[in-house]
Amino acid sequence: MPDAVILLSGGLDSATTLSLAQEQGYTCHALSLDYGQRHKAELTAAKRIATAAGVAGYKIIHLGLDAVGGSALTDAGIAVPNQPGEGIPVTYVPARNTVFLALALGWAEVLGAWDLFIGVNAVDYSGYPDCRPEFIASFEKLARLATKGGVEGGEFHVHAPLIQLSKAEIIREGTRLGVDYTLTVSCYCADAEGRACGLCDACRLRAAGFREAGVPDPTRYRPTLAED
Amino acid sequence: MPDAVILLSGGLDSATTLSLAQEQGYTCHALSLDYGQRHKAELTAAKRIATAAGVAGYKIIHLGLDAVGGSALTDAGIAVPNQPGEGIPVTYVPARNTVFLALALGWAEVLGAWDLFIGVNAVDYSGYPDCRPEFIASFEKLARLATKGGVEGGEFHVHAPLIQLSKAEIIREGTRLGVDYTLTVSCYCADAEGRACGLCDACRLRAAGFREAGVPDPTRYRPTLAED
Repeated sequence: MPDAVILLSGGLDSATTLSLAQEQGYTCHALSLDYGQRHKAELTAAKRIATAAGVAGYKIIHLGLDAVGGSALTDAGIAVPNQPGEGIPVTYVPARNTVFLALALGWAEVLGAWDLFIGVNAVDYSGYPDCRPEFIASFEKLARLATKGGVEGGEFHVHAPLIQLSKAEIIREGTRLGVDYTLTVSCYCADAEGRACGLCDACRLRAAGFREAGVPDPTRYRPTLAED
Repeated sequence: MPDAVILLSGGLDSATTLSLAQEQGYTCHALSLDYGQRHKAELTAAKRIATAAGVAGYKIIHLGLDAVGGSALTDAGIAVPNQPGEGIPVTYVPARNTVFLALALGWAEVLGAWDLFIGVNAVDYSGYPDCRPEFIASFEKLARLATKGGVEGGEFHVHAPLIQLSKAEIIREGTRLGVDYTLTVSCYCADAEGRACGLCDACRLRAAGFREAGVPDPTRYRPTLAED
């Protein structure tokens, strides 16, 4: 079975992506990035998801994006909004998916893998530029020029199987595949135990997705911020 | 003056690139990556070069590429060769320049800069795929799709002013600009004080460059490995 590198954040989307890659017959190597994000619970979740999925390999790469800042996710001086806003939100991390895909590409080269999976989504994508199909296509071209494998004639493929799905469709797919969503953490400001705030963009999208999918929402919320 | 982010490794090429960017009138922000490279002296050198050049900003981003391995520069289990080899050498770090440019792009977004400088070289490039003009052009396209600034109509430019120069031409340019090459470290296996082995690919290219340029070689070699 061909090897693939899966970017695994610990959220609902990447857990579903991993499951889809396994369904397609790939031997999956999961990669998480510890990039100074506030929501460390995401990383704990990623490790649990990787273990539950029985991946062939799992790595966490440490990356000091907090040195750069510029995002509510990496800069303690910028608050995570608890109301919907307009335009590209402050939770956008500059060039994040470019960096993450580049790191996945590096590991793929070492493994001899030609397939990368990323759980980006252009429907509920919160306005992030690096979640669009044209970005993914452009990275795929770059990967072929950037690498030893590419120079030697190999072709990297960047799979973004969720890119055209709504959150509800993603949840239905994951439910079909038996993804345990209790293991996933989506909240941008989850507490150390992975309990969600229920207010941030990520929480709102996730809760609406479960409602629309008609799937019971297994998200654990903080007791002080109970759902209405 | 427009802002620019300069990738500064601490080697001869990136020091010259920084100086060229300053000559072109950019306000320079230098970025170094601590990526688990064996040759830590490179980072010390980068900081000294940045200080000497009077950059407007300097950052070191920590990046655990050693978790991925696959290169003699990041994996203690792979020896740095002391003889010329064929093909892409084992000192190639998978997807390194893709990762580095992505991080520079992230910082540029935070700064509001549209210009990135990288000291890659396609002449003496040691066979690295991510030092070729087609790679740089492809990254420039990606940058415009990957970012908030790009979505809003901005155009990133990736400058690689050394890409078509020989090592001797680079050294002549740097000498004209007053670059202090005693501050730079090129050796892949420099000791803690930055003294060069004189044997690895990087050392050979550098020494030949000074000879060909007719510029006295200021490189400090380890006493036990004196030049012939």
